[in-house]
Amino acid sequence: MTITTVGLDADDTLWHNETIFRLTHARFVDLLDDHGDLETIETRLAEVERRNLRLYGYGVKGFTLSMIETAMELCDGGAPPEVVREILAAGREMLAHPVETLPGVTEALAALSEKYRLVLITKGDLMDQERKVAASGLGELFAAVEIVSEKDRGTYDRVFARHGTGPAEAVMAGNSMKSDVLPALEAGAFAVHIPYHVTWAHELADAPEGHHRYGALETIAALPAWIAERA
Amino acid sequence: MTITTVGLDADDTLWHNETIFRLTHARFVDLLDDHGDLETIETRLAEVERRNLRLYGYGVKGFTLSMIETAMELCDGGAPPEVVREILAAGREMLAHPVETLPGVTEALAALSEKYRLVLITKGDLMDQERKVAASGLGELFAAVEIVSEKDRGTYDRVFARHGTGPAEAVMAGNSMKSDVLPALEAGAFAVHIPYHVTWAHELADAPEGHHRYGALETIAALPAWIAERA
Repeated sequence: MTITTVGLDADDTLWHNETIFRLTHARFVDLLDDHGDLETIETRLAEVERRNLRLYGYGVKGFTLSMIETAMELCDGGAPPEVVREILAAGREMLAHPVETLPGVTEALAALSEKYRLVLITKGDLMDQERKVAASGLGELFAAVEIVSEKDRGTYDRVFARHGTGPAEAVMAGNSMKSDVLPALEAGAFAVHIPYHVTWAHELADAPEGHHRYGALETIAALPAWIAERA
Repeated sequence: MTITTVGLDADDTLWHNETIFRLTHARFVDLLDDHGDLETIETRLAEVERRNLRLYGYGVKGFTLSMIETAMELCDGGAPPEVVREILAAGREMLAHPVETLPGVTEALAALSEKYRLVLITKGDLMDQERKVAASGLGELFAAVEIVSEKDRGTYDRVFARHGTGPAEAVMAGNSMKSDVLPALEAGAFAVHIPYHVTWAHELADAPEGHHRYGALETIAALPAWIAERA
């Protein structure tokens, strides 16, 4: 089997992201603790995020707007100004947060980039994702960076056609079963699930059963060998 | 001279955009009219936008966050909840606003698409820009859509290399001297300025003097003939 191209998710595959969102969640719950318990606040925030996803898409700016909207709904008479200020500050801090690559990432990508075209494929805010690629020091290893609004079958068809030799000769690796694995398999690519220790509720999905192009790895360090066995 | 590719800006080149921002500005000034005069409010908002541009980039979500931040600064003790709610609603309405193409756009693009590869090149929020391309009904005429975080010389080098035969055989057309014309000329492309009746302050710049690859047109309807004269 020929494999020419390796697609890699970014957030929580190459560097920490969800942990930063969780820290901001915790700070948000603290801010509002006079106005609801943990579960009420988290449930309401998740509802607001789901409702806004179609308009805001993925990323820190939409999340910040959804936190403000949730605070408005949870506080009788609306959130006090200091709460809104704190949420704005939390959003800006997320956008300026240092990028911390996950263990083994640099070595794995260096090895893969010698044999395959690497393409970074990620959702989120354009400028924020470009900043993270630059700050990670990994940018040089990628032949292309694609920041997309949605990861579905058509996305992988298009990206692997544009930057490689089509999905049949490509592998997609990432932490989200729903966004990285299932639609890449549908497009006809290989797909490898490398779980992160926490997953955003909107990204949860069941693993495919007995798919011959699917793999699950505990760490990205094992990815070069997994691909070599199939190539 | 061979011309293979035509790049087109989107907002205020293909459809109205700045007028929608101006309407929201007017609504914002109304909301805060107990807390400052028109000039104070506009000046402060422009300052906050400039300060946040590096983190938020271009688009409606960042603009909404900057309006909230400005309201917090202008109101003694912070903006009241109803102001924050109104700003959130204004932002959502911008994101759901119908797309109204400018006069002559459909005909001009239909004519151009028969001879050249058309590439839409725009800044802004990913999901919002994709929505507008779809809603405009113009999507089918484009060989590619590139939503970018910044429009500089490198952007045009990359985009015209990827989707065409390089900048030397490409024309870029748009309403922003700063983002559409000057960096495209720097990259070696032809560039045509088609002004919109209002321009965002951050996009203002002087016209190039006596550049043989530069043109200025009053309307996009004249673009096919302008290109035909040079091809």
